[in-house]
Amino acid sequence: MRFEVTILGSSSATPIYNRNPSAQLLNANEHCFLIDCGEATQLQLLQYGIRAQRIDHIFISHLHGDHYLGLVGLLSSMHLNGRTKPISIFAPPELKEILDIQFRYSQTELRYPVNFYPTQVQNPEMIFENNDITVETIILEHRIPCTGFKFTQKKRLPKIIKDKVEGLNIPVEYIPLIKRGIDYTDKTGKTYLASELTTDPDDPKSYAYCSDTLCDWSYLEQIKGVDTLYHEATFMQDMIQRAKETHHTTALEAGEVALKAGVKQLLLGHFSARYKDLQPLLDEAKTVFSNSYLAVEGETFKI
Amino acid sequence: MRFEVTILGSSSATPIYNRNPSAQLLNANEHCFLIDCGEATQLQLLQYGIRAQRIDHIFISHLHGDHYLGLVGLLSSMHLNGRTKPISIFAPPELKEILDIQFRYSQTELRYPVNFYPTQVQNPEMIFENNDITVETIILEHRIPCTGFKFTQKKRLPKIIKDKVEGLNIPVEYIPLIKRGIDYTDKTGKTYLASELTTDPDDPKSYAYCSDTLCDWSYLEQIKGVDTLYHEATFMQDMIQRAKETHHTTALEAGEVALKAGVKQLLLGHFSARYKDLQPLLDEAKTVFSNSYLAVEGETFKI
Repeated sequence: MRFEVTILGSSSATPIYNRNPSAQLLNANEHCFLIDCGEATQLQLLQYGIRAQRIDHIFISHLHGDHYLGLVGLLSSMHLNGRTKPISIFAPPELKEILDIQFRYSQTELRYPVNFYPTQVQNPEMIFENNDITVETIILEHRIPCTGFKFTQKKRLPKIIKDKVEGLNIPVEYIPLIKRGIDYTDKTGKTYLASELTTDPDDPKSYAYCSDTLCDWSYLEQIKGVDTLYHEATFMQDMIQRAKETHHTTALEAGEVALKAGVKQLLLGHFSARYKDLQPLLDEAKTVFSNSYLAVEGETFKI
Repeated sequence: MRFEVTILGSSSATPIYNRNPSAQLLNANEHCFLIDCGEATQLQLLQYGIRAQRIDHIFISHLHGDHYLGLVGLLSSMHLNGRTKPISIFAPPELKEILDIQFRYSQTELRYPVNFYPTQVQNPEMIFENNDITVETIILEHRIPCTGFKFTQKKRLPKIIKDKVEGLNIPVEYIPLIKRGIDYTDKTGKTYLASELTTDPDDPKSYAYCSDTLCDWSYLEQIKGVDTLYHEATFMQDMIQRAKETHHTTALEAGEVALKAGVKQLLLGHFSARYKDLQPLLDEAKTVFSNSYLAVEGETFKI
C-alpha cells in the first residue's frame, strides 16, 4: 500500500528562492490528502503533474496565510474544472467564515459540497478515518491556535505467501477468507491451514505533521514512535531566542524532538527566508538525529 | 519618462500551462502600480526580479479570485520584510472586509498603513493622481461589479534642445524656468528666447486596462485614443455565446474594440484554460487590428 508524502512548499511566511509556502500531498493507498495549502499550491500541483481533483480531504493547521492562502484558488479551480464530488476540509473554525465571505462576494456557488470540520485545540482527537488510515490532531503551541496531524495506517490483514498458494488453484474469492484466518480445503478434501498460507502484515506506518510550533515538548507523547515526522525548523540554533519569541522551532530542536520521540525519519521544513542555503540546517539537525532530510519542493518521501 | 507595463499573469480563472492569474506592473516614471493581484503574484514578482516594496499603489478590478487572491500574501510579505511606508489600495469596497477578516484571524497587525479607497461602478471617476499621471476607473460590464483603469500621463513641460543650450553655460537652476517659458539672459546681456531653446514635450501617453468585461461597447468612449489598450480576450469568436453568457470578450471583439477606439496597440490577455496555444487568438484579433500582441508572463510593453 502506497504511503508517501510529496512536498509542495518548504518556505516559512515569505516565499523566496523558489521555495513556496507550506503544502504537502499525502498519498495513502491512492487516496490523496492535502496538508496545508499555502498560496500557489494549485500551481505546485500543476508543476508536479498531480491532479487536484484527486484530493478529497484537506487539512489546515492554522490560519497564518502561508498555510491556507491557496485554498480559495484551489477550491475555485476544482469548481471551474467540473468537480461534483464532495471535499472535506478540517481546519480552525474561522476558516469557514473566510471562505464564505470570499465565495459570497465573488458570487461563486461551488458545484460540489464542501464538508467543513472545525478543529479545536483543547485536546487531540481523531478527526477522520477510512479503510486505510486514521487522522488525529496534534495540539501544537503557536501564536494562534494550531494543530498538527497524525496519519496512522490501520493494521492490515495477513499477507498471502505467493509461493505457498501457487499450484493450489485456490478460487480468487477464497483469498480474502484465508487472510481472515479461515483454512482452505480443496476438492480432494485436503486442508491447508490459513496460518501456513499467510505471513504477518507489514507493521502499520504513521506520519506526523508538526508545523508551526514552539518546541515545548508538550506534543512529544503523541508523536512517539511515528515512522516519519515532519517538523518545522524555521531557524537555526543561533536564532533560538527569535524562535521562542515567534513560537517556532530550530533545526537542532527538531532533531531533538525526533530523537526523543524515537521516530525513524525526520523531514525538516518551513525554512525562514534568511536561509538561502539549507545545508547548514540539515547538518545541525543531523548532529542529534542522523536520519534527517530537507523536505523541499518536489521531493517525495516514503513513510 | 518610463511608462511601461510588465505582465505577471495572463490566465483567466484557472491557472494552467505556466500561465498565472491576472496581475500587471505598471512603471510610470519609476513609480510602480500593481494592477490586479491574482494568486502567486508575489512569486511572479520574485521570478522577474521586481522588488515588491517598490509598489505603493494597488488597483483591483473586481472580486473574482483570479484578480485578487494574491493580495493578502503580498501584503503579509511586505509586512514581514519590514515595510513601514503606506500602501494605497483601490478596489471594490467589500475587499476591505475580506482583508480585515484574514488579518484579524491571523492576528497580523501590519506595520505600515493601508489606505483603502473603495471604487464604485455608477460612473467613471478619477481616483488617483501624482505629478506624472492620473488614474480613472472605467466601468466594465461583468458578472459582478468591475472596473477597468485608465492611466494617463500629464502634459509635460517643453524639452530643452541640448544642442542649443550647449556652450551657453546656463546655470542648472535656470533650466526649469526656461522649460516654463522664461527667456534666459546671460552675463553679457544677450537674451535667448525660451521658445528657441525648447521643443514641444512628448505627447502624454495613456494606458487602459479592461478586464473582465462583456464586449458591450459601453466603455468605448472612455478608452478612445489611448496609446495602449489591454483588453481581455478570454475566448475565440467561435465561443461567442459562451463569452456572452460569462460576460467575457472574444479575441475578435477585442480587436474590434481597439479598432473602434482608435488605439495604437492592443494587448490581449486573460486567456481561457481551453487554449494551450495562444497564436490563434492573436491571429484572430489581428484580422481586425494588426498591432495586437499577446500579453504573456514576463513581457514588458512600452506604452
